[in-house]
Amino acid sequence: MAQFDIIRLAHAEFYVTDLEKARDFYVGGLGFIETESDANHIYLRALEDANHHCLILTKADEASLHHISYRVGSEDELDRLAQLFLENNLPLRWLAKDEERGQGRAIRIQDPSGIPVEFFCEMEKVERMLQKFTHHRAARVKRIDHANCLVTDINMINGWYMNNLGFRCSEYTVTGAAEEETLWASWLHRKPSVHDLALISESGPRLHHIGFWIDDAKTILDACDHLAAAGYSANIERSPGRHGTSNAFFVYVRDPDGHRIELYTGDYFTNDPDWEPVKWHLSDPQRATFWGTEPPYSWKTEAMPVQHILTGELMEITEPLLHSNHKK
Amino acid sequence: MAQFDIIRLAHAEFYVTDLEKARDFYVGGLGFIETESDANHIYLRALEDANHHCLILTKADEASLHHISYRVGSEDELDRLAQLFLENNLPLRWLAKDEERGQGRAIRIQDPSGIPVEFFCEMEKVERMLQKFTHHRAARVKRIDHANCLVTDINMINGWYMNNLGFRCSEYTVTGAAEEETLWASWLHRKPSVHDLALISESGPRLHHIGFWIDDAKTILDACDHLAAAGYSANIERSPGRHGTSNAFFVYVRDPDGHRIELYTGDYFTNDPDWEPVKWHLSDPQRATFWGTEPPYSWKTEAMPVQHILTGELMEITEPLLHSNHKK
Amino acid sequence: MAQFDIIRLAHAEFYVTDLEKARDFYVGGLGFIETESDANHIYLRALEDANHHCLILTKADEASLHHISYRVGSEDELDRLAQLFLENNLPLRWLAKDEERGQGRAIRIQDPSGIPVEFFCEMEKVERMLQKFTHHRAARVKRIDHANCLVTDINMINGWYMNNLGFRCSEYTVTGAAEEETLWASWLHRKPSVHDLALISESGPRLHHIGFWIDDAKTILDACDHLAAAGYSANIERSPGRHGTSNAFFVYVRDPDGHRIELYTGDYFTNDPDWEPVKWHLSDPQRATFWGTEPPYSWKTEAMPVQHILTGELMEITEPLLHSNHKK
Amino acid sequence: MAQFDIIRLAHAEFYVTDLEKARDFYVGGLGFIETESDANHIYLRALEDANHHCLILTKADEASLHHISYRVGSEDELDRLAQLFLENNLPLRWLAKDEERGQGRAIRIQDPSGIPVEFFCEMEKVERMLQKFTHHRAARVKRIDHANCLVTDINMINGWYMNNLGFRCSEYTVTGAAEEETLWASWLHRKPSVHDLALISESGPRLHHIGFWIDDAKTILDACDHLAAAGYSANIERSPGRHGTSNAFFVYVRDPDGHRIELYTGDYFTNDPDWEPVKWHLSDPQRATFWGTEPPYSWKTEAMPVQHILTGELMEITEPLLHSNHKK
Repeated sequence: MAQFDIIRLAHAEFYVTDLEKARDFYVGGLGFIETESDANHIYLRALEDANHHCLILTKADEASLHHISYRVGSEDELDRLAQLFLENNLPLRWLAKDEERGQGRAIRIQDPSGIPVEFFCEMEKVERMLQKFTHHRAARVKRIDHANCLVTDINMINGWYMNNLGFRCSEYTVTGAAEEETLWASWLHRKPSVHDLALISESGPRLHHIGFWIDDAKTILDACDHLAAAGYSANIERSPGRHGTSNAFFVYVRDPDGHRIELYTGDYFTNDPDWEPVKWHLSDPQRATFWGTEPPYSWKTEAMPVQHILTGELMEITEPLLHSNHKK
Repeated sequence: MAQFDIIRLAHAEFYVTDLEKARDFYVGGLGFIETESDANHIYLRALEDANHHCLILTKADEASLHHISYRVGSEDELDRLAQLFLENNLPLRWLAKDEERGQGRAIRIQDPSGIPVEFFCEMEKVERMLQKFTHHRAARVKRIDHANCLVTDINMINGWYMNNLGFRCSEYTVTGAAEEETLWASWLHRKPSVHDLALISESGPRLHHIGFWIDDAKTILDACDHLAAAGYSANIERSPGRHGTSNAFFVYVRDPDGHRIELYTGDYFTNDPDWEPVKWHLSDPQRATFWGTEPPYSWKTEAMPVQHILTGELMEITEPLLHSNHKK
Repeated sequence: MAQFDIIRLAHAEFYVTDLEKARDFYVGGLGFIETESDANHIYLRALEDANHHCLILTKADEASLHHISYRVGSEDELDRLAQLFLENNLPLRWLAKDEERGQGRAIRIQDPSGIPVEFFCEMEKVERMLQKFTHHRAARVKRIDHANCLVTDINMINGWYMNNLGFRCSEYTVTGAAEEETLWASWLHRKPSVHDLALISESGPRLHHIGFWIDDAKTILDACDHLAAAGYSANIERSPGRHGTSNAFFVYVRDPDGHRIELYTGDYFTNDPDWEPVKWHLSDPQRATFWGTEPPYSWKTEAMPVQHILTGELMEITEPLLHSNHKK
Repeated sequence: MAQFDIIRLAHAEFYVTDLEKARDFYVGGLGFIETESDANHIYLRALEDANHHCLILTKADEASLHHISYRVGSEDELDRLAQLFLENNLPLRWLAKDEERGQGRAIRIQDPSGIPVEFFCEMEKVERMLQKFTHHRAARVKRIDHANCLVTDINMINGWYMNNLGFRCSEYTVTGAAEEETLWASWLHRKPSVHDLALISESGPRLHHIGFWIDDAKTILDACDHLAAAGYSANIERSPGRHGTSNAFFVYVRDPDGHRIELYTGDYFTNDPDWEPVKWHLSDPQRATFWGTEPPYSWKTEAMPVQHILTGELMEITEPLLHSNHKK
């Protein structure tokens, strides 16, 4: 197995239809720090970021995911990754330094499931707000944690990330009777947490949500109060609860364009050499919500279309190979 | 207006169909302290109680509310209250000391809405567990807080509690267009908190829930984890959230017989002489859940029948005078 | 025993030497809401206050306590209280409506221990911020809770508040061997909480601190982070901990003039008719700090002088009748 | 620089003088899970451990640190590490599989500062209690986090861990005037957290404490309540607070033999390729306690002697090369 020094999921870029409304939501409602902005972009960072951005909002006619981005440990990794992707015949393009504002050179690909993915090493340093507590507001987001993507061929793409890129599996869900179980979802990580990337068998390619790390459950509750008082009560899509899978405490909110954000806490360490992935069955009622209440219908069915990295067009959404009556 | 020294809601008695299952839920699942029990009763108290019980579980063929009970400030109040109730022609009976285990003499009435209500002054003292932190488990319930009752004639019964018994209103909800608003729900208190008694216009008389005080929201989340791990994930009916009305942070759980318990925190002081009740409109989406998510259907429609204090038979449930398409 | 309808401790007035520094601390550091101000005063309220102020900061050459103030249930109570105070030959003066900005008519006395105390009923209504969560900052103070006063004749003044004004005792501390125990401190309340007024045998009359109610312990920790980042780390005098007496979770901070504020949570209900005060011995190491660590020397020895209500001069500080080597 | 796949600090072995008292403290007081025990050992694990132990208590005549232990990513690493240590002329011995109960083969060395250190790869799997919330008690310790060691030649040993073993520095403290600053303390990590190993210039070699990860600050406060009620209030050495260095929220407790445990939360991610260590000056009052209060004298001066890995004798304690009047 090839080894790549991929550090962690590092940022995402969302296309949004109204930049001011998006700023109000992310800065006013969630408390992100605005690093800089221009007529078409807002660059946001979280409280522990010493880096230029972990979220880019870009003005567009239509909401979509532009790309998610992983950080690698050295510039050389980019060349090595590019070689792999070319061997894989994946759509690929190189970005020059600062083509994405604040970032060094980078490569973007369409991964085999159709998700637009970027890799970069260098990013501009900015002031870290970790102990500037007077600037901590609302959700007090500490850092980006993971992307949750809906894919149509879960076996293929899960194998690709594990075998080609060295992602490791922390937890997974199967469906079907005991003798014919098939994979339904997989939690993959590079940093030693539960995940950098969750993959779920659904109509896709789509982005279900980006998860951001919050220090503790009480802060997530405070965030709900703040959001509701700021006029965003209808944006709180799924009430606070605990996932069985990942053991995370969560709340899910939707931005004005419908991009879904998970405020997330409750991780554990996953890098011991004998780690055995935790297995769940799709029929286990405690899998999705450990406390037993059902997610709302929108949470189970709605997700964001994603762009083609070369054309910018939205990727066609198709049915999953695994036809399941079960839902997330 | 007559003045009665009614202190607070002090306990409730639930009829349950399986005493062992009920013990497992309240002691094992919620962490109540068991003061004593016999073949047909379990007497439970909360962590700050110096008194014998704040909840009685009584074995029966059918689940129902036996009675809710208020504590008064002196024995004399019982005689004065009895006189009022006789003048009101309410069904009434006196209980001798220890007829309800651990309690002094008491009176029970059917209030004008049909709810079985008791008043008492004296109760046996027992060990207070407030600082015995090694005995604090699960929901770490501190004390009983309030009863939430469904009644068919909200105007009548709200006036009765306020005018005859000196209850005060902290918050209320109206329905209808501006020029013809009518009362839909009322939060009434004797102790200077949001409520000892909530009254809601619905099919009744029924008990919607008993609320117990928890120190903080984090403890309520811990209680959910404990309940789910103890096998009660399906008993968590309504996810943690904040009510608009009362500003309480809550979770609702159902015991094995369907009795509904609110784990509740977030009160404020209501006894200033110029207190003006907070008004809500039934159509306000933030009234029931400040954070915007809908309660489940069962929470809006299911409640517990109540007994007649003389016959023990279940009170007939009738439609509310106010026919509303709106729901709690 | 005479009965007076005294509701609760309602506000305090502090003399401060630099109004801007005081504003920075209370508004910027602690998050109080500024109701209004003029050249010499700042009127502050907490988040659940529907009333004009719970703390007044007044510019002066020297820091001191101007007065603490109780709210009563009706205007008549003021006349009845005045009569008692005159019978007690206490220094007394009437204030006209709005003589203290926002307040109805009031009486001020020097209580028999020398503490300047006010009583009032009416206060101007202002906007309540309880659910305006976007305005909740720093310590997110909900309401004033209690005053802690150092007095030289604890037996006399404790009896005076209990017998003349109907204060009730929730907890108390004794000193001395078993057969000759004497009272050292007393926690007295009118609202059904642990206290509106704590009295401690020390050099006096002095004000040790004013306690403000915070929703939960986590918010008190967040307040410490905020204060430290705002430049007030040296103002955090006593680290977070739990008191044995009162069971409160606390942190103590000092304002720029040395006025001491307790951020406080963890109360319980005290109005049952058979309440038996909790007794502590001064030698119990868990009394002051349930978790065992010692308060700093300044906390044990420093307190604020108080004014004479007629002359405005500082009351002379004398030794307590009870000479004790023990300290709070 | 040689690269070794050292995963994280994985356990410690403490010599204790009374095994029952130690069990009471760690299991009853802190809530560790007891994996197994024999006449002379107790093997403890934390709630997320799928492994046999993260702390061993061993009966002895005298309290001391037997060793701390790092987990490596493969068996081969042990051979590669052994070769390095032999080249470094360090005292070394191999342990056969199960010589330390539940562990594969391992090597132990005396590191150049005199600390007894072990490396291993394989460990017996046991039941993971992460979602068995009914078994979560007291401090609800999730995992071991770091060791804090006092050393006499900070420059030498800091360089050794960074250059030979590939530890990375997250934060460090200097002392002295600007032009002649010297290193006083260093926070080193292998897992992408603030530290696996803290090194401080003091009389040594000694172990200051082992830090264990707790989910959030509220749980640490609950642990204090539980410890105090269980009779361990005098064992809470340093009140809850926030460190400037590492940004951790902490409380420090001492076991019955004086071993110091930090209950710790509040980490951040440290593995970005351009991470720049955070620099503190020893004279900064917010370095040790961000909130400004002083640690107690015992915390600044007391620490545990450590054993020689070959003889079991206590290592001689000598003065640091850097003579400082400053204290931790």
